Amino acid sequence: MSVITLLTDFGTQDGYPGVMKGVIWSIVPHVQIADLTHDIPPQDILQGALALARTVPYFPAGTIHVAVVDPGVGTPRRPLAARLGDHYYVCPDNGLLTFLLARAESERASMRFVHLNREEYWLAEVSRSFHGRDVFAPVAAHLANGVPLALLGAPVSDPVRLPIPAPQRTGYGWRAQVIHIDRFGNLATSLSNEQAGAQPIGAVRIGGVEIRGLSRAYGDRLPGELVALYDSSGFLSVAVVNGDAAQRLQARPGDPVDVFLPDSA
Amino acid sequence: MSVITLLTDFGTQDGYPGVMKGVIWSIVPHVQIADLTHDIPPQDILQGALALARTVPYFPAGTIHVAVVDPGVGTPRRPLAARLGDHYYVCPDNGLLTFLLARAESERASMRFVHLNREEYWLAEVSRSFHGRDVFAPVAAHLANGVPLALLGAPVSDPVRLPIPAPQRTGYGWRAQVIHIDRFGNLATSLSNEQAGAQPIGAVRIGGVEIRGLSRAYGDRLPGELVALYDSSGFLSVAVVNGDAAQRLQARPGDPVDVFLPDSA
Amino acid sequence: MSVITLLTDFGTQDGYPGVMKGVIWSIVPHVQIADLTHDIPPQDILQGALALARTVPYFPAGTIHVAVVDPGVGTPRRPLAARLGDHYYVCPDNGLLTFLLARAESERASMRFVHLNREEYWLAEVSRSFHGRDVFAPVAAHLANGVPLALLGAPVSDPVRLPIPAPQRTGYGWRAQVIHIDRFGNLATSLSNEQAGAQPIGAVRIGGVEIRGLSRAYGDRLPGELVALYDSSGFLSVAVVNGDAAQRLQARPGDPVDVFLPDSA
Repeated sequence: MSVITLLTDFGTQDGYPGVMKGVIWSIVPHVQIADLTHDIPPQDILQGALALARTVPYFPAGTIHVAVVDPGVGTPRRPLAARLGDHYYVCPDNGLLTFLLARAESERASMRFVHLNREEYWLAEVSRSFHGRDVFAPVAAHLANGVPLALLGAPVSDPVRLPIPAPQRTGYGWRAQVIHIDRFGNLATSLSNEQAGAQPIGAVRIGGVEIRGLSRAYGDRLPGELVALYDSSGFLSVAVVNGDAAQRLQARPGDPVDVFLPDSA
Repeated sequence: MSVITLLTDFGTQDGYPGVMKGVIWSIVPHVQIADLTHDIPPQDILQGALALARTVPYFPAGTIHVAVVDPGVGTPRRPLAARLGDHYYVCPDNGLLTFLLARAESERASMRFVHLNREEYWLAEVSRSFHGRDVFAPVAAHLANGVPLALLGAPVSDPVRLPIPAPQRTGYGWRAQVIHIDRFGNLATSLSNEQAGAQPIGAVRIGGVEIRGLSRAYGDRLPGELVALYDSSGFLSVAVVNGDAAQRLQARPGDPVDVFLPDSA
Repeated sequence: MSVITLLTDFGTQDGYPGVMKGVIWSIVPHVQIADLTHDIPPQDILQGALALARTVPYFPAGTIHVAVVDPGVGTPRRPLAARLGDHYYVCPDNGLLTFLLARAESERASMRFVHLNREEYWLAEVSRSFHGRDVFAPVAAHLANGVPLALLGAPVSDPVRLPIPAPQRTGYGWRAQVIHIDRFGNLATSLSNEQAGAQPIGAVRIGGVEIRGLSRAYGDRLPGELVALYDSSGFLSVAVVNGDAAQRLQARPGDPVDVFLPDSA
């Protein structure tokens, strides 16, 4: 039995994600459905793409991920279905897969994309403003029912990609930026442990504050202290032990973060 | 296998919807449960009734919908179960079914109501303040287990209805009102495309601002522009492309909206 | 088939609870998962312990409850699995089970605890900051798959307990405190109907306001009136009928509440 996940910017107050479950279970009654999150900031494709990349690796092979952050709904932007390695994705073709594509390429995973244009796999009536309900949910359900990707649309090879906010190499180390702030106020930066590689880190500077040395866990320092550490997704992060770094530093996504090698700190 | 949905004003912070799932799975272990929303404004029966009407049509026949917005819990207000067409409903008898009743009548669907008074289908201990847990969830679970509606209570024929905020016909077209503001700040009005029928619309005026012409999709206009269009539930709506119309217009539920026929605009 | 529940302080915006579902379904594909709440205030173990105690009794025997409010993640605090009566628990050993332990002892239920140290039941890579994903979710899944508690770790007998904020007996009755404020602004106090026993209550005083007499249900008084009543979990509570007592009284967790016997009021 497959699992279907849902990631959207719909919020939960209006029942839109619930409606998608109704559509899915009308087509494939026994499938399990997990909400990844519905609180992506409205129309923020980059945050949706980051959230998708952080969460999907923990689902079983064969999982079908529906992602809808869709400012172009009702325009000619393509609806898409994809297979990357052994996971499936159904989403607008607007860059939501950016980080997953980069990862699949670096892992030389197999990839396949179709432009969804076979309307017999959509709801009978398709609105111009809610393709999550009318196109993406039913397509995911048909995939879970065993309909092959190739029947859902025409092959394409050029999915849209967002520019990835990559850290810049500098004389002292890297200039990175804040790419995500989580519920705890932890600040994830664009520098991953893969990019930093074996290089030790001497200090991190953000908002005029310098944090010396890397911690291995939040609990390595005292409550209230600022720490830098690699988070559970492998991104260099800034946190306050048992506190809220975003609030303390008045930080926002996009803020610059300077990372110093030990001899430059 | 049936599906059960939950729609309440309980919020998710306190675990009340989770408790209802525990009660349901204690009685019917394999049933799928979908949260429609738990963020109906506290005690706002009208918003609950609207949310229910927007979401339930997308669930499979036989689905059992539990709706609890219940300012009268603990008073003699009747607990109710109903069948409207091929869906089931379990809720307090306070108007939550208003829009679904009107729709069922216009579709000449079969309808049946019972006043829940057979306590053997409730939890053994019933509190005076949480009938979602003690009455409605167990009744829904017994329905999913195959207990016929008629066994759950005495037949009734006069379920409570809210006054529906219908648009008024005027010389220039209609005077409608804002009935719902969604997560994106889109403003749904009380004028549906069924009511407007074949009549084209020339302009919409709200909060001193006039929007000329109807769009078919958000993407028909440029980001930041105000548009009027029929939303995915068929209600005339006002939106800002990739923006927040409620914030822009400082709009609230109940605000008047004037809709002009082409020759009156 | 078992049920697994999730209670955390992760929020839903970042997808952390969704990731836990992915981990669980990778190990035990058919298990039902219920979110209890993910909105425990960050690192507030006491609120997590209270929420757990209010919600778990309504789940079927054999349910596995995963609770993660874990300010000590990455430190030597023990990861724990427990059986209390016929429910299972997987959580950090930091007091989250406090109220459930007290209840199990008062009911003379059987209890068993293990210190999770068998890493073959964890994810292959364990981060220092997200044991909900890397340790607790996989252990719960293996329990659901039938792995006995005893195989998951070494027996322990001294789980951590929080000091319980018990009401003090006074000449006039009790001095209690606000322990929880729910979505409706209802104020639950530390005085339970078990503790008050057969004693009738004459009045409740909070924030300089006195409420005379106990109500049986919210609907016993007029909208807008302050009432005192036992809530659906058996705690003496203060509410405003169809309103928000926390807002009206500017109340916060920890605020004192005086409860008067009839002849002292």
